[in-house]
Amino acid sequence: VLFTTPTQAADPLPSWKDGKTKASIITFVKAVTDKQSADFVAPAERIATFDNDGTLWTEQPMYTQLSFALDRITQMAPQHPDWASKQPFKAVLDKDMKTLAASGEKGLLELVVASHSGMSTESFEAIVLDWFSQARHPRFKRPYTEMAYQPMLELLAFLRANEFKTYIVSGGGVEFMRPITESVYGVPPEQVVGSSIKTQYEVQDGKPTLVRLGEIGFINDKTGKPVAINDHIGRRPIAAFGNSDGDQQMLEWTAAGDGARLMMLVFHDDKDREYAYGPAGGQPESSSGHFSQELMDKAKKNNWNVISMKNDWKKVFPDKK
Amino acid sequence: VLFTTPTQAADPLPSWKDGKTKASIITFVKAVTDKQSADFVAPAERIATFDNDGTLWTEQPMYTQLSFALDRITQMAPQHPDWASKQPFKAVLDKDMKTLAASGEKGLLELVVASHSGMSTESFEAIVLDWFSQARHPRFKRPYTEMAYQPMLELLAFLRANEFKTYIVSGGGVEFMRPITESVYGVPPEQVVGSSIKTQYEVQDGKPTLVRLGEIGFINDKTGKPVAINDHIGRRPIAAFGNSDGDQQMLEWTAAGDGARLMMLVFHDDKDREYAYGPAGGQPESSSGHFSQELMDKAKKNNWNVISMKNDWKKVFPDKK
Ligand SMILES: [Ca+2]
Ligand SMILES: [Ca+2]
Repeated sequence: VLFTTPTQAADPLPSWKDGKTKASIITFVKAVTDKQSADFVAPAERIATFDNDGTLWTEQPMYTQLSFALDRITQMAPQHPDWASKQPFKAVLDKDMKTLAASGEKGLLELVVASHSGMSTESFEAIVLDWFSQARHPRFKRPYTEMAYQPMLELLAFLRANEFKTYIVSGGGVEFMRPITESVYGVPPEQVVGSSIKTQYEVQDGKPTLVRLGEIGFINDKTGKPVAINDHIGRRPIAAFGNSDGDQQMLEWTAAGDGARLMMLVFHDDKDREYAYGPAGGQPESSSGHFSQELMDKAKKNNWNVISMKNDWKKVFPDKK
Repeated sequence: VLFTTPTQAADPLPSWKDGKTKASIITFVKAVTDKQSADFVAPAERIATFDNDGTLWTEQPMYTQLSFALDRITQMAPQHPDWASKQPFKAVLDKDMKTLAASGEKGLLELVVASHSGMSTESFEAIVLDWFSQARHPRFKRPYTEMAYQPMLELLAFLRANEFKTYIVSGGGVEFMRPITESVYGVPPEQVVGSSIKTQYEVQDGKPTLVRLGEIGFINDKTGKPVAINDHIGRRPIAAFGNSDGDQQMLEWTAAGDGARLMMLVFHDDKDREYAYGPAGGQPESSSGHFSQELMDKAKKNNWNVISMKNDWKKVFPDKK
């Protein structure tokens, strides 16, 4: 026969274990998409914002972008002989992670600026794509583009299937992420908000060019996230997803709107399948992704959902292609 | 009978006179949407950017936002007794347009900052909407939201019907435009890019708030337009529309991409139905919207389309509601 009886709709979140966390996603999406519901939200207002590092993909043993910056510095070193004796560059070239860490945020910014500027936006995009095609995660030996979390990929797709617009709102560099967000997450460049360095418009040999300057434009972290959401989107999200103290203000800003809201934090408590860090819950501190006990307490108090990687996810990474 | 023979599709641009200008729009859209065409562009890449003042709506006898700022200053004056003797505020209160003009760009920025800051983003939106509901254009006696150009409204709709994403990229303040762009132009807030003042995230009495600070964040004009397009959209437009020297770099940046491109400039040569100003073509200079002879020459040389309001448009403004 040509026609069969309707079967039950497939589970849209197959990598999520049944339980309270998965149920709160399903309940929220039903409420805002059901025209009969008091919590119905028009499709145009269905904005969901996602932090990237540690929320959508792994940020250990170091931020992916930092790994890119260190590789770039090593690659650029022959053109910069002074780096052999100049910190924090020397530490990178010596693979001296202790001295590198001691250079702090200031040192890291210096490395990022040196490795991310001085070329056109088009050249930078080519450099980023070339790096992603070659670099491999040190523990899992997979391309970084395969280090996204399978349950979060399903969540992004589920929200979009329900007419949400999914945005990335990350502390990472916007032009580091954009070349790969469409293929990895299904998020187009115009829906990626991030930190940035300044660019300058120049006509070089008759060719209009945007040159990446050695100067930070915007740091999209903490209080910067609601500012950037307002600047780029101009609407308040109804759902927000993060994993660290840097996301607190984005979740607060989201929660403070009227009507149904969904706030979620990924908690890394799965040393075997990924990593375990906090310091919340007595887990070890990490130099990427600080999830404080204060944030955990705030989440509990405000009914923000904390996703336990260990208990809520059936699998962490996508199957190998 | 229930079925009729198909009729010829209605003209998508009924307010445009037949001729070279209208034909270049139709030809371009056909080329980029026809899968058999060498110039086919995937829907995701169909980005069109529009300047606002003088391109989508009238900017005479002064920018709409300046009119708003002057009204706000007058309204706020009782709380600022010092303004009675302090320029450029005194000039506003005295309706002394000559002294006001003499205060130059610096004076105007001072007025804009004073009238646009010190409140939350939500309060500012309410102030803007209230002003639009009451203010009337001095010559045409219509709400400013009805001062959009009917042919450009048709063009926006025609592009969207062909799966373009239409963006406003304006020197005007982003939070002045966003409250009305959806209803006037069908452009949602996340597709409005503009100048901005800085905002700051604060929790006031437990309520997360974005406060508008008295400090310019970004001026979205001239070389700023390609910078902001890259920052907000992350793709190069394939079509761009402007009306003044402030749009030159946006059009250059658009034109410099590969494949079919459409660049258009609205030229105001219609004193009877709207306004006539240049100085291109020997028309009078205007304090809003400078269309230089150099820009006109550049347009001719590069086959950018110059829209003659007088000769290309059947009507200028929408019918009264
Ligand atoms: Ca994070
Ligand atoms: Ca203009």
